[in-house]
Amino acid sequence: MTFEELPAAVVQTDSDVVAGFAHDEAQLVDRRLPLAVLSPRSTDEVVACLRAAASAGLAVVTRGAGTGLAGGANAPDGSVVLSTRRLDRIVAIDVEERLAVMQPGVVTADLRSAVADLGLFYPPDPGSVATSTIGGNVATNAGGMCCVKYGVTGDYVLGLEAVLADGRVMRTGRRTVKGVAGYGLTSLLVGSEGTLGVITEITLRLLPAPPPPATVVATFASLTDAGRAVERITGDGTDVSLLELLDATTLAAIDAHTGMGLAAEAMLLVQSDLPDPGPAIDSVQAACEAAGAVDVVVTTDADEGAQLLEARRQALPAMERLGDWLLDDVCVPRRSIVALVEGIAQVADDVGLTIGVFGHAGDGNMHPTIVFDRHDPDSLAAARRAFDAITALALELGGTVTGEHGVGRLKSGWLARELDPVALDVHRTVKAALDPHGRLNPGSVLS
Amino acid sequence: MTFEELPAAVVQTDSDVVAGFAHDEAQLVDRRLPLAVLSPRSTDEVVACLRAAASAGLAVVTRGAGTGLAGGANAPDGSVVLSTRRLDRIVAIDVEERLAVMQPGVVTADLRSAVADLGLFYPPDPGSVATSTIGGNVATNAGGMCCVKYGVTGDYVLGLEAVLADGRVMRTGRRTVKGVAGYGLTSLLVGSEGTLGVITEITLRLLPAPPPPATVVATFASLTDAGRAVERITGDGTDVSLLELLDATTLAAIDAHTGMGLAAEAMLLVQSDLPDPGPAIDSVQAACEAAGAVDVVVTTDADEGAQLLEARRQALPAMERLGDWLLDDVCVPRRSIVALVEGIAQVADDVGLTIGVFGHAGDGNMHPTIVFDRHDPDSLAAARRAFDAITALALELGGTVTGEHGVGRLKSGWLARELDPVALDVHRTVKAALDPHGRLNPGSVLS
Ligand SMILES: Cc1cc2nc3c(=O)[nH]c(=O)nc-3n(C[C@H](O)[C@H](O)[C@H](O)COP(=O)(O)OP(=O)(O)OC[C@H]3O[C@@H](n4cnc5c(N)ncnc54)[C@H](O)[C@@H]3O)c2cc1C
Ligand SMILES: Cc1cc2nc3c(=O)[nH]c(=O)nc-3n(C[C@H](O)[C@H](O)[C@H](O)COP(=O)(O)OP(=O)(O)OC[C@H]3O[C@@H](n4cnc5c(N)ncnc54)[C@H](O)[C@@H]3O)c2cc1C
Repeated sequence: MTFEELPAAVVQTDSDVVAGFAHDEAQLVDRRLPLAVLSPRSTDEVVACLRAAASAGLAVVTRGAGTGLAGGANAPDGSVVLSTRRLDRIVAIDVEERLAVMQPGVVTADLRSAVADLGLFYPPDPGSVATSTIGGNVATNAGGMCCVKYGVTGDYVLGLEAVLADGRVMRTGRRTVKGVAGYGLTSLLVGSEGTLGVITEITLRLLPAPPPPATVVATFASLTDAGRAVERITGDGTDVSLLELLDATTLAAIDAHTGMGLAAEAMLLVQSDLPDPGPAIDSVQAACEAAGAVDVVVTTDADEGAQLLEARRQALPAMERLGDWLLDDVCVPRRSIVALVEGIAQVADDVGLTIGVFGHAGDGNMHPTIVFDRHDPDSLAAARRAFDAITALALELGGTVTGEHGVGRLKSGWLARELDPVALDVHRTVKAALDPHGRLNPGSVLS
Repeated sequence: MTFEELPAAVVQTDSDVVAGFAHDEAQLVDRRLPLAVLSPRSTDEVVACLRAAASAGLAVVTRGAGTGLAGGANAPDGSVVLSTRRLDRIVAIDVEERLAVMQPGVVTADLRSAVADLGLFYPPDPGSVATSTIGGNVATNAGGMCCVKYGVTGDYVLGLEAVLADGRVMRTGRRTVKGVAGYGLTSLLVGSEGTLGVITEITLRLLPAPPPPATVVATFASLTDAGRAVERITGDGTDVSLLELLDATTLAAIDAHTGMGLAAEAMLLVQSDLPDPGPAIDSVQAACEAAGAVDVVVTTDADEGAQLLEARRQALPAMERLGDWLLDDVCVPRRSIVALVEGIAQVADDVGLTIGVFGHAGDGNMHPTIVFDRHDPDSLAAARRAFDAITALALELGGTVTGEHGVGRLKSGWLARELDPVALDVHRTVKAALDPHGRLNPGSVLS
């Protein structure tokens, strides 16, 4: 099988087209131009693409929607991009068993609303939910605002079909609630960022739809106070379904962008979707007050709750108006949340850039967002220094260099610092065992 | 490093001692005598043991408490057993972060009660909880009665330390709630049944203790009716924390054993541990009634609930009085629960043996328990036929050959039937990559 033998409709080499598939949303990562974009329409065509790449000796970078923030979909020179955009079919939704089967190119929001129409709930909701693909979510083990209660994408993956580097098609997992037959190959593919196989079908487990949530909005005189409230709420183990933190910079940007009238040094947005949210909401309110909240407002109005969530979702588009942004992603133990937000403020001071802080505080997973000007070498250098300092801080605090965005090309050096040397070596062993010629997304995850 | 160089206290070769470490609780699996039992007292001594085994060219079978039901800890001829019985220290319980760090030989019940004393909850509760080890639970990805709400052991494993076949020590995972740095090596070790590494330290995440549960006990005129009630309850997505099914044979055995006065064609035991369990309990009651329950009793008395659970825990000791038992373990999609229990009754009829049926019906995970006489060749052959027929039935119904007990030596042939050939091949590739000389538990999982 060679590229010439692939159906003409599958291969595009026009440089304008190719440029649109060359990189994801990450900053500080090299951007090159791949040789071609392959857009297979079936698993068989994925097999053909991988066989053609193998016989041509070319690297293959799989791409979902390209919303990644780690450069995982950035195609190196001389590679081909395999786009899943035409593999966008929901194959089945089984209401009784509460599971759905789909191709990887299905957009996350489309899947969520298709199952919601049937009274079911697929929790994972990355900020990019309107455009990212389920395949990309699985390949990065994406998170979102739901995680504090509902966990991450991987917690919903029951089984996968994947095409291996040599073109063999593998099926993993099961359709039952439980099962321990064999090694956790499904979990091995989840989060492997296109380096171990091309995911071509996904079986997800679903939940019954929860009731509409009650919402608490609390404002604070400082980020530290808000951080303390987070530590209290998580420490109490209160059953909250959302626990997001926004700092003054982010709030001002959202306010300028939406005119919603938000202003505070820090804000917490908390929800509970329990059938009777009363006790949880009371306990959140008490925790915020104990941490010195300026103002605490509770609403059980679903629309109002949804509007507040929408404000949170506008954090990034809003920051975007301030300049180029580098949306970072670190995660620390719960007890280090205050130390993290204080440390980030120090970094912003040190490098002289604005860094907005917001994120999934309930998990200790924050997204410090560095605003800079990538055409100004000084600003770019300062952004890089800030990025390094924040990543180092997360490790110092016992955290991880990536809570949910993945390693990609952006953090492969940092992965080597986080992992123990034997674990890193075992990563290379596993990669070599499954992709001996290093053809799948080389340079990503493992540098 | 050779065996002679190991500290004398670590090595035992006395045949009486060795015989006590030779096999687990599985039936229908070969039992041989290992050459020696090694009982290391530290990770360093585990390393020394594995190095000694490597230089002697001997296979190593890791053993926790030996409560396994798949022959996973059965030592083949000419192997050594590595017992974790002296690695039994809880290293730390971090209340604030809700995590615990321990050595693998800690008994499951000891860990559960140590964290309960601090107001925390470690859900996994296999029937063997009083004797099994956390290391064995992780290595088999053990389940239990909690799974219908709280998932399995693997859902609580944040990180591991493991000694690889060549004696290198690897650390995987993290201490944060979320994290996607690198491949899912933790998940790869979970459920690997001692074939990829010896687990020497485990970091588990914990939950806040839930309130005492409310309990529903429902009896039915047939197993089929009870199965229908299960399908209704799970179909509704009612938030239950336990959903166990017991058939007439099991109930009669428990009654004879405990004098608790249990008698019915089938019984469901259901609990909800929600702060306000009322609506869930009502919906369970309605589902049982709609399925034609003979009698439905609700109790919010915690002691009464605990007593009923204790009756369920006596299922196996009670069956034991009827003869030799083979506790099987299959899992089917929820909609096939009725077909499974009806099929098992047919198998019992066909082979002429008593088969008690009980288990984690809420997950579709049943434990048909075949009663036979292993000294009677005809009875033994009938038990084997029943075992094969039930395992085949589970696969036919879209299920798995093992819901929670593992593959071990008992089901390695069945694993090959369940897995897709490429996935099976990838299992062998992964095994060869991590244990190239096939020294760790050879013949288990992969035959
Ligand atoms: C505004 C914004 C908000 C975001 N918010 C969040 C958030 O809250 N949480 C979060 O986790 N992430 C978030 N992200 C990051 C990003 O959206 C996620 O990583 C997402 O999962 C990527 O999906 P994608 O389809 O765009 O994948 P891509 O960017 O195309 O690819 C991501 C990686 O997955 C691989 N890949 C894609 N599809 C496949 C496949 N079928 N088989 C094998 N490998 C594949 C690629 O090779 C690449 O390594 C956000 C991004 C943006 C721009
Ligand atoms: C009465 C009874 C009830 C049971 N109920 C349940 C139940 O409800 N749910 C359930 O899931 N199981 C159940 N089991 C099965 C069994 O208890 C579990 O599989 C348990 O997890 C085994 O733990 P163990 O310490 O006894 O391990 P062992 O039996 O000693 O070993 C089990 C496997 O794990 C490996 N292993 C053990 N320790 C390590 C380690 N440190 N590193 C690497 N590999 C290791 C062994 O090599 C072997 O392959 C039950 C068993 C009995 C006898």
